Amino acid sequence: MNYSPLIQQLIDAFKRLPGVGNKSAQRMVLHFLERDREGGRRLAAALAAAMDGVGQCCVCRTLSETEHCGICSHPARDHGTVCVVETPADVFAVEQTAAYRGRYFVLMGHLSPIDGIGPAALGIDVLVQQVQNIAVHEVILATNPTVEGEATAWYIAEQLNRPELVERGLKVSRIAHGVPMGGELEYIDGSTLMHSLSGRQLLSLAGKTDNTA
Amino acid sequence: MNYSPLIQQLIDAFKRLPGVGNKSAQRMVLHFLERDREGGRRLAAALAAAMDGVGQCCVCRTLSETEHCGICSHPARDHGTVCVVETPADVFAVEQTAAYRGRYFVLMGHLSPIDGIGPAALGIDVLVQQVQNIAVHEVILATNPTVEGEATAWYIAEQLNRPELVERGLKVSRIAHGVPMGGELEYIDGSTLMHSLSGRQLLSLAGKTDNTA
Repeated sequence: MNYSPLIQQLIDAFKRLPGVGNKSAQRMVLHFLERDREGGRRLAAALAAAMDGVGQCCVCRTLSETEHCGICSHPARDHGTVCVVETPADVFAVEQTAAYRGRYFVLMGHLSPIDGIGPAALGIDVLVQQVQNIAVHEVILATNPTVEGEATAWYIAEQLNRPELVERGLKVSRIAHGVPMGGELEYIDGSTLMHSLSGRQLLSLAGKTDNTA
Repeated sequence: MNYSPLIQQLIDAFKRLPGVGNKSAQRMVLHFLERDREGGRRLAAALAAAMDGVGQCCVCRTLSETEHCGICSHPARDHGTVCVVETPADVFAVEQTAAYRGRYFVLMGHLSPIDGIGPAALGIDVLVQQVQNIAVHEVILATNPTVEGEATAWYIAEQLNRPELVERGLKVSRIAHGVPMGGELEYIDGSTLMHSLSGRQLLSLAGKTDNTA
């Protein structure tokens, strides 16, 4: 004995979500049916609207329902600095820090030859063109510090290593890898610690000069 | 900087689900937008259809899109045995055992005076009427073994304790509480162990009579 067809269909639809199994899907469906029909209707409407209405920004490729996303069309952002990330969620994560005022370029993935994802699928040629045509002075490579993310970052850096861009003084940087804030050295893996050491930064002793004098 | 309005609206709609916070909702939305638009559309359609199409069975009150649910309209089920449960999920759980051939009565909750849920909201009067009018010979009280579930079970038992029903030989039973299969006595709470002891059952020694003789 199963649930009735409409309910079973809805459970199956929820099961397509990542990390949602049979029990969770059942719980979600019964929540809406037993306690929140209005919320269910609202979710259905929001889903239908987003699936058809959300496309990609024509400049930075992030998910957006307008031709230019909110960041690319913002007059106060520094359009000369481009932060290259893998997904729209990464854009949101960087935005949450409120420490970055430039714009983004979203690859929508990383290089993965085994899955048939090459430079063209990630729009790396579009990025290089943008850097050449628009007055970009720095490209920050903020792909994930995974094997694929690193490879993607190095590939992009290589593509940007062109005489005319070097001459123009284009800077290409990679986000720092190291010990996360609040972390303990004892529990950090060797690879991260190695990056943390090799990426060490000189401390400014300006405030202590009178002591050492 | 937030997500664009359509995306933010969708994230907020997913957040109404139990156990889904900001991060999970964001992950679900980006999954559909980046990788599975077809799945998103299917979920939207299934949700809309279920929210409007699913009602309650007129006999057992479980969620159903037809007037009589699949169990109540099944000719091979024993309509003289009624299993009283709290939610449609409980019906599904009992059905999964494939050990029960009777029908159900779904309270859609438990007695909770503090939330204003009394016997009428749970349809207990409907249940009593059904037992009086239809030839029911056993009512199995399968509400949860929580304080509210126990109180609900005892209340129903009291309502069914009527001279004409007792005369007719109606049996009212409660599901057994005890040590779950695969459990270890050492880690079972005292209350469960107490129920397990007081609910002990005599073992049939029929096969051993020649040994003890």
